[in-house]
This record gives sequence, C-alpha cells and structure tokens, in this order.
Amino acid sequence: MTPFEYLKKTEKKRMDDLFAWLRFASVSARSEYKKELIACAKWTRNHLSAIGFKSKVYPTAGHPIVYAEYLVDKKLPTVLYYGHYDVQPVEPLNLWKSKPFEPEVRSGYIYARGAVDDKGQTFAQIKGIEAVLKATGTLPVNVKMVIEGEEETHPSHLPAFLKKNKKMLRADVVVVSDTAQFSKTHPAVTFGLRGIAAVEVFVKGPNRDLHSGSFGGAVANPVTVLCNMVAQLHDKNGRVAIPGFYSGVKPPNKWMKTQFKKLPFSEAAYKRSVGVKALGGEKGFTPFERTWARPTCEINGITGGYQGEGHKTIIPSLASCKITMRLVPGQDPHDICNKIEKYLKKIAPPSVELKISKQGGARAVVVPTDSPWLDAARAAIKKGFGKEPVFMMEGGSIPIVNDFKQTLGLDTLLIGFAQNDDNTHSPNERFRIIDFERGCKTAAALPEALATVK
Amino acid sequence: MTPFEYLKKTEKKRMDDLFAWLRFASVSARSEYKKELIACAKWTRNHLSAIGFKSKVYPTAGHPIVYAEYLVDKKLPTVLYYGHYDVQPVEPLNLWKSKPFEPEVRSGYIYARGAVDDKGQTFAQIKGIEAVLKATGTLPVNVKMVIEGEEETHPSHLPAFLKKNKKMLRADVVVVSDTAQFSKTHPAVTFGLRGIAAVEVFVKGPNRDLHSGSFGGAVANPVTVLCNMVAQLHDKNGRVAIPGFYSGVKPPNKWMKTQFKKLPFSEAAYKRSVGVKALGGEKGFTPFERTWARPTCEINGITGGYQGEGHKTIIPSLASCKITMRLVPGQDPHDICNKIEKYLKKIAPPSVELKISKQGGARAVVVPTDSPWLDAARAAIKKGFGKEPVFMMEGGSIPIVNDFKQTLGLDTLLIGFAQNDDNTHSPNERFRIIDFERGCKTAAALPEALATVK
Repeated sequence: MTPFEYLKKTEKKRMDDLFAWLRFASVSARSEYKKELIACAKWTRNHLSAIGFKSKVYPTAGHPIVYAEYLVDKKLPTVLYYGHYDVQPVEPLNLWKSKPFEPEVRSGYIYARGAVDDKGQTFAQIKGIEAVLKATGTLPVNVKMVIEGEEETHPSHLPAFLKKNKKMLRADVVVVSDTAQFSKTHPAVTFGLRGIAAVEVFVKGPNRDLHSGSFGGAVANPVTVLCNMVAQLHDKNGRVAIPGFYSGVKPPNKWMKTQFKKLPFSEAAYKRSVGVKALGGEKGFTPFERTWARPTCEINGITGGYQGEGHKTIIPSLASCKITMRLVPGQDPHDICNKIEKYLKKIAPPSVELKISKQGGARAVVVPTDSPWLDAARAAIKKGFGKEPVFMMEGGSIPIVNDFKQTLGLDTLLIGFAQNDDNTHSPNERFRIIDFERGCKTAAALPEALATVK
Repeated sequence: MTPFEYLKKTEKKRMDDLFAWLRFASVSARSEYKKELIACAKWTRNHLSAIGFKSKVYPTAGHPIVYAEYLVDKKLPTVLYYGHYDVQPVEPLNLWKSKPFEPEVRSGYIYARGAVDDKGQTFAQIKGIEAVLKATGTLPVNVKMVIEGEEETHPSHLPAFLKKNKKMLRADVVVVSDTAQFSKTHPAVTFGLRGIAAVEVFVKGPNRDLHSGSFGGAVANPVTVLCNMVAQLHDKNGRVAIPGFYSGVKPPNKWMKTQFKKLPFSEAAYKRSVGVKALGGEKGFTPFERTWARPTCEINGITGGYQGEGHKTIIPSLASCKITMRLVPGQDPHDICNKIEKYLKKIAPPSVELKISKQGGARAVVVPTDSPWLDAARAAIKKGFGKEPVFMMEGGSIPIVNDFKQTLGLDTLLIGFAQNDDNTHSPNERFRIIDFERGCKTAAALPEALATVK
C-alpha cells in the first residue's frame, strides 16, 4: 500500500478526525475558552500519540504547546513542523451560515472556525505523515512537531519555548502550512518574507499652538517641516533616500526574477482591485519585486494641528508620523532604525526639536534560492497537486518564522494550502476539500522529497 | 477751557459713566443675555444723545446696532468711528478675582469684562469727542459712529448693515480702537492687517487601507504623496513656491522698513517666548516684515492613516491637510485659492486622486503708507501719550476692517489703547487707567488732527 492509497482508504475517517478537532472552540484571545484550549491540546497530543509520535503537552503562562516527535535515525534530515490549534474569535456570529464550531460541508468546502487557519492545514501535514508511517512502517526523515495555542493572541509563549528547548528542537528545516496558494490554479511554495523596522517621529515647533496670523512667517511650522522630511525619504525614482538603507541589499537574482515572471499578473486588474489609476513604487522593478523582494519605507499615519471641521488658524506646536520599513535580507532592523534616525536628525532644521522613537522589528527571512529544500517542496507539491507549484514570496512578516531563523538557525518552507477567499479571520471560514486532500497528498510526498536533500 | 482741561475736570464722572456701561452683561454669544444687550444698546444711544449726537438703535435679526452722528459741515472731513458694546463670555467664573460685571479698580487697573474689549476703548473715543464738543462748542470734523453688539459672536449683521446704509455711512476714514499698543512704552498706530485664503486638500490613494506588507512598494502612499506636495509649497529660501503667488505683491517699502526698524525687537526674547531655538520663514526679510508685510502659506493641520498607540502596518487610503494663506495687498483670496489648486493638481502624481476644497477668504487692508491719515493719527497719539507712536501692522485679519474697505471704500486707522497683557477674552480682563486716560486725550486730539487732512 502506498501512502496515497492509505489516504484514499482513510478519507472518511480523516474527515471525521478533523471535524472532531474543529469542534474545540479554541479561541485563544478569550479567557473564557481556556478549558477548551487545554482540552484541544490534550486531544492533539493523544491524536499524535495514537499515530505513533512521542507526544507531550507543555504548559505555558498562557495556552499550552503540544510537542511531538518521531525520530528514526540521526543520519536522516530532521524536519520541524509548525502549526497552531488556536483560532480567531468568531464574532459577529449572526453572519455565520452554520455554527462555527459545528463543522459542515457545503458545495465542496468544510465550513468552521479553524477549518483552514490553521487546524485544517496542520491536519493535512499530520495526516500526510501518518500515511507514510502507516503505509511504509517508518519515515524517511526525523519529524518534530510544534503546535502552539497562541498564534492568534498576544503574547505567544512560543519564542521563549524555542529559546528554552533549542536542543530538543534541533532540525534542518521548518515546514509551515499557514499561508495561501498563489491562486486556485497555482499552488505555491512561499520561500521568503520581508522583515520590518518601525519608528515614530515627533517634530516639536513652538511651545503651544500659535496664532498663524500673528506668528505666521517668523516661526517654522512643524507640519511643514515634517512633510519636508518625509518628502526626503524617497528620491525621484521611488528609491528610499536614507543613506546606507540599501547596504547589503542585493537585487532580486535571476532565479527569483524567472519565478516571478511565471506568475500571472494583470496590472489593470491589480489597479482595479485597490482602486487606483496608476501604481507607485521604485522604478526598475516589477510589482512582485517591489512588494516581495525590495525594501520599502511607508508612512502608516501622520498627525498634526487642527483636524476638526472648518479652519483653525494656527501654527501647530506638534506634528508626528508613524513609519514602518519593510526589510529584505541584508538589512538589520536596529541598524535601519539608527540610519533613519541619523538621516532625519541631519535634515531637520534648527527651528524644530526632533524626537525619534525607535521600535526595532524583525529581519527578513528568505530560503536561499539555490537551496535544495525548495526543490524538495516543489517536488512534493507536484505530486500532491499534480501540478508544478510557483515560487512566490510574501511582503508581510510572520513573526514566528523569524524566530525559527534567529533562535534555531532554520529556514522555513511555507507550503500553504489555503485560498485567498477562504474567509480567514472572518465569518464562514472555510477550506476547499480538494485543497485539503491535495494538501494531505503533498504532506505525504514531502518527507521523501526532503529525505533526498541530505 | 481746552478739551484736555475738560477731561481733567470730568475725570470722576467719566469713570462713573464707564462703570455704568460695564455693568451691562452684554454677552452676545449667549441668548439668555439678549435683554442685557438691548438695554446696553439703549443706554449707549441715550449717552450719545446726551452728549449731543443724533443717535438711534437699529434692530437686527441678532443684537441691535447703535448709530450716532454729529454732522457739522459737508466741507469738513467725515470720520466713521467703530466699536462694539458686546463682550466675550466670562467663564470660567471662579478664576475672576472680582465679579466681571461689577467693575473694580485695583492697582491702577479697571477690572471688568469689556473693560478694554471693547467698551473701555470705545468709551475713550466717545469721551474724547465729548471733550472737544463741550470745550469748543463744535467739532472740527463730521463724526459718524457705529457701535455693534455682535463682534464677539457669529454671525454679525454689521456687514449687511454697511451694505444697506452706504449713503448714511459715507465718510473719509474709519477709526477703530480695538487693538493693542506695541508695548507699555510704545503707543502705536496699526496701519494694516493681512488677509486670508483657506483651502483643504484631500489626497485619496487606494480604496481602503491596505496591508503595508502585501502592497507596500507597488501602491503609492497618499500620506507620502501629500507630504511631497506640501514640501513643494515652499522653496529653499522659505518663499512660497506656488506659481503666481507673489504677482502684484510689493516688497515692504522704504517707509515701512524704517518704521519697523524703530520697533524694539529681541530675537532671543521672541524665540524664548514661543519656545524655539531658531526662527523660520522667508529669507531676506525681518520677523516684522515676515509676519506683517509678507504673505505666508501655513499648514494648520494634517491627518492620515493610523494615529493611535503602537503601529498599524497600513498604506492609508486617505490623507488631508488644512491650509490657510495670509495675504498682503495685491493678492485676491479667490485668485490665490485657484492658484494653489492649479499648482497642487499639476504636481500630484497620477497614483492618487486629488480633491481641493476652496474656502475663499478676505483681502489684506493697509492704509497707504503715504496717507496723511497716518500722520494725523500720529499727531493725536503724540498729544495723548506725550510720546511719538510707532507704526505697526497686524499679521492676523479683523474681518470688519475688510468690510469697511470693500463696502464703503474706506481705510481704517487702528488706534489701540490696550496692552497685550490685558487678559482680553480671559478672566480678569482689565484696562490700565493711565492707558484709558491717554486714550481719552488721544481721542480728544484726533478730530483736530484729522481735520487738517482735507
């Protein structure tokens, strides 16, 4: 019996098991669900134990972490799987067609809170591994698995858990199924995420709002000063003008460019979807390169002076703005915060006082594009989906992936089975059954593909 | 008996009369004081009639206007005096040392609401004219007087009154005592006010706040765009960069420069008072020139994106700012609004939608610096204060002065007897008795000085 045959044979049972897991109302953000989370963690541990894992629930100051391992041979590669059993709150309940914790199948979809984020996707990985184990009697890699209960709340105790259990968690690569495919027709490997650095800038002018008639012309306006400084954050080509900002940043390499070019992209549709008449950004790069492989500097908010109805004729005393910069490999968030601070201090005129609050951030994480892990992920998806995946990146940050890199030194393969219209975090969360099944197959093919790497 | 001797003789009676006027709680902004305002208007009319004026109360949809005239000879110049009998609200009452409508003398000051703004100052003018009339039996000019009850509230019905009674109000010059002296050691003639033009600028980017990770780099950020546009409102020398903004604007002339140079100015003290380490503004001009005789473009408020605690990683959908421009002679507010609109539309990138709300404004008013009226005012103040006045301007706008110019075609002499520390609009409003007395003397000397003009 092959793993795929095992999956075929156990289709009904697998769905029943998933439904049992989905029935736990494991809403991590709400303390009234604490018992549900504990019960859910125990169920997860028991389920993994039944498959053959050595499994344990680790209590934390918050919700427990489930850790499981199936170690075969030290010489084999070790794969660390990550997932989370907690889910988002369900409100507003009246918008749900079926109850969020009573899973229901409609038109080829499983509807439930957690169906795809992340119980369904994690379950696909578990069931794929189970299929290999049951069909072949062993695994071609060592498997370690961390399933946390605090991904949808703050703070998560997982980063501390990683630091405390470095030895136990030693591995060669991390696999996470908590993202989306590129589209319904394009399964994908996500091989990188941008990092982030945040600062807040405060410009203080006069010691109070001044009458703009009496003082206008002699006292610098901090809003105008701040706007001038913000205007100097980019050059005419949309490039960030902070000295040293691009130090260590490499342009997208040939392989990346080739992958991105394979992705269907309609500029007209993209513009329509966000409601703009023209795109912006750095000259000389495509939209995918701009959002995935190039760093940015964005003003997330600005404020200063009078904002109510009508006019108030003042020179405001204060102006401020919030800035986040998306980072790519080669950039360190603290270094970037220092560089923007130095630059802003240099360009600020003596007529204002400048205060910059540096709030750090996270580095970008990218699996090296020549990494054999990527090829292994590709091969597994090809088997699972019957189709070559595309290689894509994500412009945002997933904090825990950064922790895997920083704390454990591991690259992460983001093999997402979701679709962008699965209503993640919204009412009527769902998981396409065909994606779940292809996900299970991909997961069943993945260990063998990863085994060839070392 | 000279007018000054008459003033000396009637000192006690004059103070009693002023106190009687101050006892009316003529708070125009509060409807519960409506009867007080009517009574106050009647008292004003009766007082002017008793002096010898032909006087009448004109009802309006709001509070009544008192009009009085003493016409001597058509060949003589006609002076239109303006003042207001209404006062600001008195709250917070607990901060007053004596009751606001029970005038009290303490340490050389009269304390009461309206003591200086504007009953006290208007009374100085009335009593000066009375002194001339009683001492000489006539007046060397024709006098018309408008005392309104809606200066401290909105709307005032005076502009409509001016339009409706152009013939009755025909005159050669307007005299207003509703401003401050330059300082306790420098009585002043204020010979001009800046105008104002207002716009609000809205920059629309994407149709919703976008995730700055997923979209950052490909979609233009409307806050950044707005900042870029604001940064282009001034050049490196602090000059407004809107094309055509300075068309028709003349630099301060030699006479103005000379007057301003006579004014004591400590840059260190000025910076200390507003709490800045360096001044700003247009290069090549002094602070007085910048705030009085040069137009400006100030951002009174800016807003866009997230402004709460912490960070929200978005590309905001919207950014906007409120702009007022202070105008000098030669600039028309509507033309200026059109010019900034045209310029902003030209420099806005195609990645955003721009909407500009033009809110008009008021022209600047300046008495021509070679006007003989100015010299007459100077001569009267010299007699009243025993000291040469300085000639100053005011950077803000006093709307009614603009109406005198636009509707009646008249220049206004602002002969203020107040001090900047008289607590105008605040608790413990006061009027220095010595300033009141010098004001009365100035007012007694003014008709004769003005009579020499024509």
